[in-house]
Amino acid sequence: MWRKLLAGTAVISMKSAKCSDSGMATNDLPEYTWDEIKTHKTPGKSVWIVMGKGVYDITRFVEMHPGGDKILLAAGSSADAFWNLYRIHKQDKVKDMLESFRIGNLKGGEKLEALNDPFSGDPNRSTHFIAHTEKAYNGELPNDLLTEKILTPNTEFFVRNHLPVPVVDENTYELELVFEDDKCTSFNLKDLKSKFPIVSVESSIQCAGNRRFEANQQGVTRGVEWRGGAIGNAVWTGIRLRDILKHLGEINPEYKHVQIEALDTDPNGPFGTSIPIEKAMDSDTILAFEMNGETLPRDHGFPVRLIVPGYVGVRNIKWVKRITLSTSESPLIWHKRDYRLFSPNDSLGNVNFEEREPVYDMPVQSVICSPIDSTSFDSKNENVNFKGFAYSGGGRGIVRVELTTDHGESWIEAQLEKRQQRLGRRWSWAFWNANIPSSDIEKEVCVRAVDDAGHGQPESLKSIWNYRGLLTNSWHCIHLIRK
Amino acid sequence: MWRKLLAGTAVISMKSAKCSDSGMATNDLPEYTWDEIKTHKTPGKSVWIVMGKGVYDITRFVEMHPGGDKILLAAGSSADAFWNLYRIHKQDKVKDMLESFRIGNLKGGEKLEALNDPFSGDPNRSTHFIAHTEKAYNGELPNDLLTEKILTPNTEFFVRNHLPVPVVDENTYELELVFEDDKCTSFNLKDLKSKFPIVSVESSIQCAGNRRFEANQQGVTRGVEWRGGAIGNAVWTGIRLRDILKHLGEINPEYKHVQIEALDTDPNGPFGTSIPIEKAMDSDTILAFEMNGETLPRDHGFPVRLIVPGYVGVRNIKWVKRITLSTSESPLIWHKRDYRLFSPNDSLGNVNFEEREPVYDMPVQSVICSPIDSTSFDSKNENVNFKGFAYSGGGRGIVRVELTTDHGESWIEAQLEKRQQRLGRRWSWAFWNANIPSSDIEKEVCVRAVDDAGHGQPESLKSIWNYRGLLTNSWHCIHLIRK
Repeated sequence: MWRKLLAGTAVISMKSAKCSDSGMATNDLPEYTWDEIKTHKTPGKSVWIVMGKGVYDITRFVEMHPGGDKILLAAGSSADAFWNLYRIHKQDKVKDMLESFRIGNLKGGEKLEALNDPFSGDPNRSTHFIAHTEKAYNGELPNDLLTEKILTPNTEFFVRNHLPVPVVDENTYELELVFEDDKCTSFNLKDLKSKFPIVSVESSIQCAGNRRFEANQQGVTRGVEWRGGAIGNAVWTGIRLRDILKHLGEINPEYKHVQIEALDTDPNGPFGTSIPIEKAMDSDTILAFEMNGETLPRDHGFPVRLIVPGYVGVRNIKWVKRITLSTSESPLIWHKRDYRLFSPNDSLGNVNFEEREPVYDMPVQSVICSPIDSTSFDSKNENVNFKGFAYSGGGRGIVRVELTTDHGESWIEAQLEKRQQRLGRRWSWAFWNANIPSSDIEKEVCVRAVDDAGHGQPESLKSIWNYRGLLTNSWHCIHLIRK
Repeated sequence: MWRKLLAGTAVISMKSAKCSDSGMATNDLPEYTWDEIKTHKTPGKSVWIVMGKGVYDITRFVEMHPGGDKILLAAGSSADAFWNLYRIHKQDKVKDMLESFRIGNLKGGEKLEALNDPFSGDPNRSTHFIAHTEKAYNGELPNDLLTEKILTPNTEFFVRNHLPVPVVDENTYELELVFEDDKCTSFNLKDLKSKFPIVSVESSIQCAGNRRFEANQQGVTRGVEWRGGAIGNAVWTGIRLRDILKHLGEINPEYKHVQIEALDTDPNGPFGTSIPIEKAMDSDTILAFEMNGETLPRDHGFPVRLIVPGYVGVRNIKWVKRITLSTSESPLIWHKRDYRLFSPNDSLGNVNFEEREPVYDMPVQSVICSPIDSTSFDSKNENVNFKGFAYSGGGRGIVRVELTTDHGESWIEAQLEKRQQRLGRRWSWAFWNANIPSSDIEKEVCVRAVDDAGHGQPESLKSIWNYRGLLTNSWHCIHLIRK
């Protein structure tokens, strides 16, 4: 459909054929002030948006927008933030299409009020991060900083946001619970913290798209180009989800899913997902207020984050607003249309989302964090020291990490630093390190981990590549240069 | 140590140097009757054994026996059954060593009473089975019979026995429970069947050594050479283990493991293992009396078998005798010295069993059951139909099965026949089938499955091979001949 739309634009007269002009002022067009622009935000009447210095009348385009109503969030305002949010806009063809709707320039010296930028309330982030996108913010630590501490400091924990960070007043915050079709209740933060036992759980959280950068070497995927650092480990403190659910009464066995809606929203509705009732009732599934002993940072879900140990990052919903017991999975687009177990044969055009199951659990993963890829090593030193992390989903722990300098002909077992966690509840990553004789290193060094179900990592990325670059977990290989 | 012993035998005069003579009558030696032989079974005095027609005085060897005291089970009797049980004996060097202890022949016409054969009470088995060993019995269906029924008929369910099948009188059978250091209780079969709710669970059981035949193509392993058929699926009916444990009272949180001892024994003690308390308390972990609606067959654990869905076959203990709540894992040799997550670097000589964790959960598996390997296909037919099973441990279901005719360059998705089971409780295998155009088939066709944690199967066996041939789950490939 997107392709069809792009093709369709050929019949619209192109006011600017050069994509480099997109958003730049053009001398032959009238100027408009923000006050005037703001009056053009009514679908069916006229819809203007601003991009950079350009003013565009997109009335005719609104209904054709592949992203649906979302475009109206920028009506009478600036669309810059949204274009940053959705990578698909970053193509010359899309920019050309936008220019075809150009009607004028933003009046010189005019500034958009901060209020118009939905990301203007976002918190500051660590200067250590590699920021892949600013709006919404997505940032990770460089690999070699990742394995400094087995509990990742809060400020260094990767940030994966889909939307602007909600601004929440803890005094008025309420968590809503819908536990039967006709019953609804809510708790304020004080209730939550005082009415239920407080528990702590140590759990790693990994984004399904971690290592997408490598997947993109194999073929173009869609999403943030994580280098391996979209994972962290923390102690989460809060109350058990099951304590709240049980507090409400006997749970009707028809309710097989717990839907969670968040406070971060866009015009299509809130961010959200669902988890199976069995996982919701697990003693380690909690509503957390604290991360590593501190108040939950805004970027990690202040005031309340759902922690679902062993599950993929996206199910660990931040800024929890509403919890609903339901007979069905979440109907929200974030649950239904993404984060699924895609096949190498799937593509955006042909995937049947209903046929692909959501990712909850995750396969075993390991990364060489240092040395970093493409650095040189001194062959006069006897050994080269390798360090990294390993992790598996579903509470499966790491039992072995092995490195190879001959692409799997032989393996060198690494030393493991594991957390003490019970079988089936091994939620935390493991660190590992190994010394390899310099003389053994030709060029490539790869790592693989084995979890307690005996799962290893696939040797080639080709066998697991998918168009969303999810669950990239083939052997992690780096190349080193002898000096 | 074994090697050392073999080397040591060189100083003992060899009465027969030809290994083909082992167990045959030799003309120049005296004859002994069973009555006389039976009097020589006292360690420290004299120990004779019989192998075939040969009589051997092994008094000097008893203490050196690598298998420990087990050798005394045959004292004053026939050792044939035990040699069949332990493959390590089937070497020319071992036979030569035995002949060095030869003192005579069994008197002509003498027959060993059935009582002396611990396997004489074993039940009859399906004629469909490939019987890998008779004593103890280990048999599987040929692959092409395996996928006929999604619930494997009881008589066709693979049999993996370590020891003789116990002969149990259901009227006197008692299940013992040791639930505190000083408390012990027991239930007879009538109690078990009447005092607790009866439940049914559908679960596949797979032997950790399934597909060891292939592992042996890569390098010699130790164990039964299963061809892929060491798996079956059944509905098990019985009572929840947790109902019995709760019946006994509050469980002290110090008890982290449930040890299970079985009725099948050898001189070293009973067969047995342990499982973590969390798994023991799971609603689907049961003590089964029935298999597919019939009384549990003797080969499958009559009268009571522990069913631990999602766990490797060996933990699904047959002929349960005693259940003990404990602070530690089972001390039995079958638990401590085998069925562990071995590395490709481990060998019998160097493995530190304590360092390797027991296999409980199992990785994703799939097998092409038909056509069978090395058969021809008619290239005049448009398609070749492929069928098989896929399975993953830990309650993870199969989400996708794919075949490749070009060793992973491209994949053809198979049709899945899955059981309706809840996420996290997907205990049953899935069947699959796919039609592949004859023209696409060069020679090799491989299958791989993906489970709901996103785990696939490794493409090469080399990366997972271990000396015990456990958890062999690389892509299953067959070769076909065009005609």
